[in-house]
Amino acid sequence: MKKSLFITFEGIDGSGKSTIAKLVYEELNKKGYDLILSREPGGVKIAEDIRAIILDRKNTNLDDRTEALLFASSRRQHLVEKILPALNEGKIVLCDRYIDSSLAYQGAGKGLGIDNVLNINLFATENKLPDLTILFDLEPEDGLGRINKSKVREVNRLDLEKLSFYHKCRNAYLELAKRYDDRYKIVDASKDINTVLKETLEIIINKIEEN
Amino acid sequence: MKKSLFITFEGIDGSGKSTIAKLVYEELNKKGYDLILSREPGGVKIAEDIRAIILDRKNTNLDDRTEALLFASSRRQHLVEKILPALNEGKIVLCDRYIDSSLAYQGAGKGLGIDNVLNINLFATENKLPDLTILFDLEPEDGLGRINKSKVREVNRLDLEKLSFYHKCRNAYLELAKRYDDRYKIVDASKDINTVLKETLEIIINKIEEN
Repeated sequence: MKKSLFITFEGIDGSGKSTIAKLVYEELNKKGYDLILSREPGGVKIAEDIRAIILDRKNTNLDDRTEALLFASSRRQHLVEKILPALNEGKIVLCDRYIDSSLAYQGAGKGLGIDNVLNINLFATENKLPDLTILFDLEPEDGLGRINKSKVREVNRLDLEKLSFYHKCRNAYLELAKRYDDRYKIVDASKDINTVLKETLEIIINKIEEN
Repeated sequence: MKKSLFITFEGIDGSGKSTIAKLVYEELNKKGYDLILSREPGGVKIAEDIRAIILDRKNTNLDDRTEALLFASSRRQHLVEKILPALNEGKIVLCDRYIDSSLAYQGAGKGLGIDNVLNINLFATENKLPDLTILFDLEPEDGLGRINKSKVREVNRLDLEKLSFYHKCRNAYLELAKRYDDRYKIVDASKDINTVLKETLEIIINKIEEN
C-alpha cells in the first residue's frame, strides 16, 4: 500500500526553491514515485481568481490583513481541490510554498504577528500541516541579487517590498524551523544548484523510506 | 463635539432590514444627523472584486471555509476604506450586515462553528464590533415568502440555500443577541413596515442621545 506524503518547499524570494522543486519532481518521477508538484493557486480557478486580486498592481490600497485573508482563502481552495485529493490517492505532494510562507511574509514581514496569521491558516487548512518542510535558507541580499540578475518572471507588487522585509521573513523562517523541528529541514541555498538538489533529494528519500 | 456611532442591521434574508436601513437613513438625514449608510462591499473596489468571486454562479465548488475567509477579507477592506474613516470624522455609520452575518450564515448555517468564524473576523476587524446591532427577527418561512413575492433583486447562489439553513441562521442570531446583550436590540420584523421603522428609529435615537 502506498503512503502519501505532503512536502512543502519554503524560503524567501530568490532562494531557488521553485527551481529545485521542479528538478526534484523530475528526479523522483524518473525513479517511479507517484507524485505531483503544485504551488498556490495551482490552476484551481477560484484560487486563481483570488490570486489575481492580490497581484493586481492597481490594488495599491490592499490592506495587509485583507491580503493575509485572501492568501488563506486561496490556500484553502487549493488544498481541498488539489492537495487533499492527491494525498487521498496515496501520492507524494510537493508544494512550492504553503502555510509557512504566510507566517513568514504576512505574520513577520508585514508585522501582523505569526500566531495571528497561524490562527486564520489553521482555520483555512483545518490544521493540515505538511509532513516535511524544506527551508531553502539564504541571505536576503543574495536572494534579491538572483532575482534582479535572472528576471525569469515579471516583477510584481510583492517584489517591490524592501530588503528589510526579507530579513524579517528569513528570521521568521529560522524561528519556525525551531518551533516545528519535527517537520523542518534546512538546506543551505547559497551552495551551487547541484549540491542543493542532491541534499534535498537525500532528505526527501530518507523521509519516504521512514514513512 | 460630534460622537461617532457604529450601527449594524442584521437579520435573515427577507427580514426587510435593507429597506428599513434606507428609510432610517433618510429620516435621520432629514433630522440633520451626519451619517452614512453602507453595506459590504460598499463600492470599495477590492471588496467588490472579492464579492464577485463569492457570488459567481460558476463557482459551484466554492468551499465553505474559502467563502468565510473571502467574506472576512471583503469586510476588512470595507472597514478600513469606508467605515473607519467615517467614524473618525465623527459620523454615524449605518451598515447593512457586518460580522454577525458571518457568524449566523457561515458559523451556524454552514456549520463552521460560530467561534471559529468569530476568530477570523476578529482578526479581520481588529476586534472592531458595532456600538449597536439591530436584529430584525422573522420566521424564515415569512422571509422566503417575501423574497419570492417581491423579486426586487436577482436570485443569487446564496439564495438557493435551503429553508433549514435559514432556521439555523435565525437561531444563531437569537443566541448572539443573548451573548452580546449590551449591543443587541431585537425588532419584531413581522409587524407592518411603519411600526418596524418607528421602533427602529426610537432605538437609534435613544442610543444617539445616551452616547
